[in-house]
Amino acid sequence: VEEPLWKTDLNAACQRIKLVAMDVDGTLTDGRIYFTEQGDFIKSFDAADGWAFAAARKAGLILALATGRRSETVRARAREFKVAPYNVIQGMNNKGDALKKLCRLNNVTLEECAFIGDDYVDAAGLKVCGLPLAVANAPDEIKALSAYVSNHSGGDSAVRELLVWLLREQGKLKQVVDWYLAQ
Amino acid sequence: VEEPLWKTDLNAACQRIKLVAMDVDGTLTDGRIYFTEQGDFIKSFDAADGWAFAAARKAGLILALATGRRSETVRARAREFKVAPYNVIQGMNNKGDALKKLCRLNNVTLEECAFIGDDYVDAAGLKVCGLPLAVANAPDEIKALSAYVSNHSGGDSAVRELLVWLLREQGKLKQVVDWYLAQ
Amino acid sequence: VEEPLWKTDLNAACQRIKLVAMDVDGTLTDGRIYFTEQGDFIKSFDAADGWAFAAARKAGLILALATGRRSETVRARAREFKVAPYNVIQGMNNKGDALKKLCRLNNVTLEECAFIGDDYVDAAGLKVCGLPLAVANAPDEIKALSAYVSNHSGGDSAVRELLVWLLREQGKLKQVVDWYLAQ
Amino acid sequence: VEEPLWKTDLNAACQRIKLVAMDVDGTLTDGRIYFTEQGDFIKSFDAADGWAFAAARKAGLILALATGRRSETVRARAREFKVAPYNVIQGMNNKGDALKKLCRLNNVTLEECAFIGDDYVDAAGLKVCGLPLAVANAPDEIKALSAYVSNHSGGDSAVRELLVWLLREQGKLKQVVDWYLAQ
Repeated sequence: VEEPLWKTDLNAACQRIKLVAMDVDGTLTDGRIYFTEQGDFIKSFDAADGWAFAAARKAGLILALATGRRSETVRARAREFKVAPYNVIQGMNNKGDALKKLCRLNNVTLEECAFIGDDYVDAAGLKVCGLPLAVANAPDEIKALSAYVSNHSGGDSAVRELLVWLLREQGKLKQVVDWYLAQ
Repeated sequence: VEEPLWKTDLNAACQRIKLVAMDVDGTLTDGRIYFTEQGDFIKSFDAADGWAFAAARKAGLILALATGRRSETVRARAREFKVAPYNVIQGMNNKGDALKKLCRLNNVTLEECAFIGDDYVDAAGLKVCGLPLAVANAPDEIKALSAYVSNHSGGDSAVRELLVWLLREQGKLKQVVDWYLAQ
Repeated sequence: VEEPLWKTDLNAACQRIKLVAMDVDGTLTDGRIYFTEQGDFIKSFDAADGWAFAAARKAGLILALATGRRSETVRARAREFKVAPYNVIQGMNNKGDALKKLCRLNNVTLEECAFIGDDYVDAAGLKVCGLPLAVANAPDEIKALSAYVSNHSGGDSAVRELLVWLLREQGKLKQVVDWYLAQ
Repeated sequence: VEEPLWKTDLNAACQRIKLVAMDVDGTLTDGRIYFTEQGDFIKSFDAADGWAFAAARKAGLILALATGRRSETVRARAREFKVAPYNVIQGMNNKGDALKKLCRLNNVTLEECAFIGDDYVDAAGLKVCGLPLAVANAPDEIKALSAYVSNHSGGDSAVRELLVWLLREQGKLKQVVDWYLAQ
């Protein structure tokens, strides 16, 4: 069995990343799902994560969402994040399969993908990707599968923290931040 | 007066459990009820508790909800949790009576039931069941009635913590977690 | 100038209380007002406060709400709390005038009223009542006007804490709690 | 290059301020944007900030909002805050340009404007105004651009803290608070 690159050279694994996919509930949200009496769902997303999506796009990264549920709220949020509709995979329970589909659609390899998760259902995605990442609120077994774990929890800027960390590893952070500071 | 089994042998009391019933507001939620100007309610549930419901079902436990209120949001959440509609008892103020009804419907004894509560109104349910459980935000008198109290508060993974604890006591946790990690 | 009774004998001031009026935003809620794109408001109330309303009613206290805003959400919440519709005063900016109106409607004196507030706009109510109470998140000048300040913040069981404290001062708490524990 | 006045004499810079403009998401809110399945947004604002808007208005300050997004929720909130409709700038990504527009509309100079922000996108506004202010949750580079940083986070009374601080610097706080306490 071959060791994944991130175990021996984390920065090299980061340098290869072209696509960052992530779970939604508990990762991009705090896990709370609001149920109305009409049977609709409401979820809250963090505007601070929104900045990180814009910054990562500026730096050339492809962003994608992969969730086992199906909800219009995720499509609406993805539109705001400017994630391409074909990069929003909903209703696919196996995150490994979702990631393989995203690779085909974007013509990248699994080694060129990072995946961010927060729970046991994300294990399959974390195991097949080139850079497995977890949020602070993930269970220990999920953190153990990950190359890097955020200090922030999902929905509270965890994704921003991980994207900023990745951009720094890739040497692209300063340029993006400077662009904003120079406006 | 006979001592309940959980006072003398907690693990044996856990081994007998076939059904876990629980209160909703303050137990499966953080107690916040959002009122709209149309007079509707909105409640938030924790996606992390959702995983625990799926895991407990995989391990063969029956899950049930018992609340004194009535709301479509609870029915919608129960559907997502895959709780059978007849195991959602709404509008019954006495939780002891609700638990007895659940026993009849599922052909189990009170000793085979756990009940999770967070407030004084849950006392009647906690007193008649085989394994009374409370969340961190419960008042002291309710904690005193309980065999085990979670460290997490209701709506913030308290139910997940208690279900994971019960599965561990029943020796079923590792198998369920391994199933997810092996996907 | 005569000192108010609560400064010299707090328990005696508590014993006289027949009606407890309170502000809404920041007192019964955490102060967050959710605005929808349709221009509607949503506010969240704490189910734990709901138990305290029921307990105070059982102990014979009259409960009332006084807010400077107007919103259907407050009427809906009051209905759930079983507060009489005429005891919900909305749109009256001066809380002292609101409290005087509540006294007339309920045939009680200002000395027989407690008032719970969280902000400068509640000063007029706190100054005229027989038992001024504040929540943890109130500014210092408001706390200085109050006979007792909760440890909990508004919307996070502050009202429950204050009502439980008042029932204890009035010697009625144990009976109410025992009623629930005996179900 | 001339040093801005706030670097050499902070109180003098405060004394000149006639208009306070601010970002919305993450500054007047906690950054959470709630997405419904109908594709609508919901945002929560803090009633405590509402008092500060009223107090600042009483003290003669002009208040304005500048956000890169567009949403009816901001217009509804502004109406409640009694911010003049022409002082709500939406959909303008460059906050410096938004601030210049607000100056023209209100016949004030940039030196007479304060700007409150929470993220990189607010840099342009902070750099051109006479009193740049940031909230506790802002990134370090944004705090470094600011004359003063709140201890509270956006949506959790940060704007109230900053407006109260400014009124105190301008010597107007006591009069406004006393007005409320004297009701």
